[in-house]
Amino acid sequence: MARHVYLCPLRWADMDSLGHVNNVTYVDYLQEARVDMLRVNAPATGGEQLAEGVVVVRHEVEFAAPLVFRFEPVRIESWVTRIRAASFTMAYEILDEHPDGARTVYTRARTVLTPYVFSEERPRRIRGEERTVLERFLEPEGAS
Amino acid sequence: MARHVYLCPLRWADMDSLGHVNNVTYVDYLQEARVDMLRVNAPATGGEQLAEGVVVVRHEVEFAAPLVFRFEPVRIESWVTRIRAASFTMAYEILDEHPDGARTVYTRARTVLTPYVFSEERPRRIRGEERTVLERFLEPEGAS
Amino acid sequence: MARHVYLCPLRWADMDSLGHVNNVTYVDYLQEARVDMLRVNAPATGGEQLAEGVVVVRHEVEFAAPLVFRFEPVRIESWVTRIRAASFTMAYEILDEHPDGARTVYTRARTVLTPYVFSEERPRRIRGEERTVLERFLEPEGAS
Amino acid sequence: MARHVYLCPLRWADMDSLGHVNNVTYVDYLQEARVDMLRVNAPATGGEQLAEGVVVVRHEVEFAAPLVFRFEPVRIESWVTRIRAASFTMAYEILDEHPDGARTVYTRARTVLTPYVFSEERPRRIRGEERTVLERFLEPEGAS
Repeated sequence: MARHVYLCPLRWADMDSLGHVNNVTYVDYLQEARVDMLRVNAPATGGEQLAEGVVVVRHEVEFAAPLVFRFEPVRIESWVTRIRAASFTMAYEILDEHPDGARTVYTRARTVLTPYVFSEERPRRIRGEERTVLERFLEPEGAS
Repeated sequence: MARHVYLCPLRWADMDSLGHVNNVTYVDYLQEARVDMLRVNAPATGGEQLAEGVVVVRHEVEFAAPLVFRFEPVRIESWVTRIRAASFTMAYEILDEHPDGARTVYTRARTVLTPYVFSEERPRRIRGEERTVLERFLEPEGAS
Repeated sequence: MARHVYLCPLRWADMDSLGHVNNVTYVDYLQEARVDMLRVNAPATGGEQLAEGVVVVRHEVEFAAPLVFRFEPVRIESWVTRIRAASFTMAYEILDEHPDGARTVYTRARTVLTPYVFSEERPRRIRGEERTVLERFLEPEGAS
Repeated sequence: MARHVYLCPLRWADMDSLGHVNNVTYVDYLQEARVDMLRVNAPATGGEQLAEGVVVVRHEVEFAAPLVFRFEPVRIESWVTRIRAASFTMAYEILDEHPDGARTVYTRARTVLTPYVFSEERPRRIRGEERTVLERFLEPEGAS
């Protein structure tokens, strides 16, 4: 029921020729947020394989505002919108939260992922303990 | 009415820890294909600003099969699916075409782009000569 | 007389096909450490232009041990070894410091930089206030 | 006795905020040239392991002129300057060759490499057939 917050450090090299973070780099940021949520700061053990043992099935990324390079990290909130037998969907917002509580959202994205057994090159079902981790972040779309 | 073909060279550094091209890198490949279609090998002059003077509004990327690193370039076909007053949509397929004509599609993607005046930080309408370039690649979705 | 310490976050995408940080990525880390020392956490104002208004004249990078991917940042110490009229030399070590004080050094590097006026495409001399910033980190080679 | 020529395609994403190829990216280009020389277009079989089964021991990179982004590939000449029992040194020039034969050199670099058995995490000696490949490119420094 809780969004995961990852403070994503920018790199000097992320800037494109306009001083903006390039659209490709945003997708890299999403990957970092995902790994952080599922592995580094997972709310419970059991989800390790969901961070690295998954394949991306689909990305949808909507660019709402340009992110100008700066030295402060940018906030990425991530959560889970759907859990199925052998796949799950994550949502993210890349944003700044201002002192007055206002938010500037730079990017909204969704990723469909499926657990994968790389040694056998096949997808697999989500395990019980993995579901438990994912459910901690579940915020179904349309719910409010 | 014609798809643009870009033979995208892979880089050694594109490989992730599994020897696959990482999902983020695919999005970079799409950018290269887009620049190549609209600028390097544009069918007519007038579209230069569409290559670099655009912002990405939205990406949808579907990963159909893993692309294992190799030294041969990978084929990217790109075309235009919709032209509106101030935005257009491109579609792409990253694929290998086999000698017998069969195709292995690794990625299907769509990008919504809008021409942008960076010095004034505002979107702008598509110009007539730009529309002419885009129409050369027009293949509306659902048409067959 | 003090080394600058930058705790450099790794990214999942930095890993190469062996699970190591690729040699190219190290050079990116050096850039991050340099920008952090001269700009983000500069000991005094006046050095801002040294972070971004410089060109790299020369890199020497020695790879001492492989850095295996992990989620903890890696420590980068950087300092200045020489200040001339229109160039200066930085040295760096990328390392882990262990609880017992032992150090594993992954990379040792030196970079010669020169302040540069990009709008006029010419190098320039180091200003007085910039020299003051650099001298705070001065540890001439051979001195001990 | 022959330099290897690799025509290195630039990527749109290689441009930094000044429209130049960033110093980090050059090091990536060197890697591409090295892999191309030792593997893709090796003059004889037997050198495959030298392309990927090596570790970089040391880089020296000298930046002579800024490379402004363009769509044409840049020429990278590479050769071998020294062959020892368990290491070898490559040299490179990243340059443009003009129609009148004049050359603009952007970068000169040298890399010391050592063959490496990754599964056992140890360096190894250069094999006879590898030496044969390397000798085809041998141009000792100081020779002229």
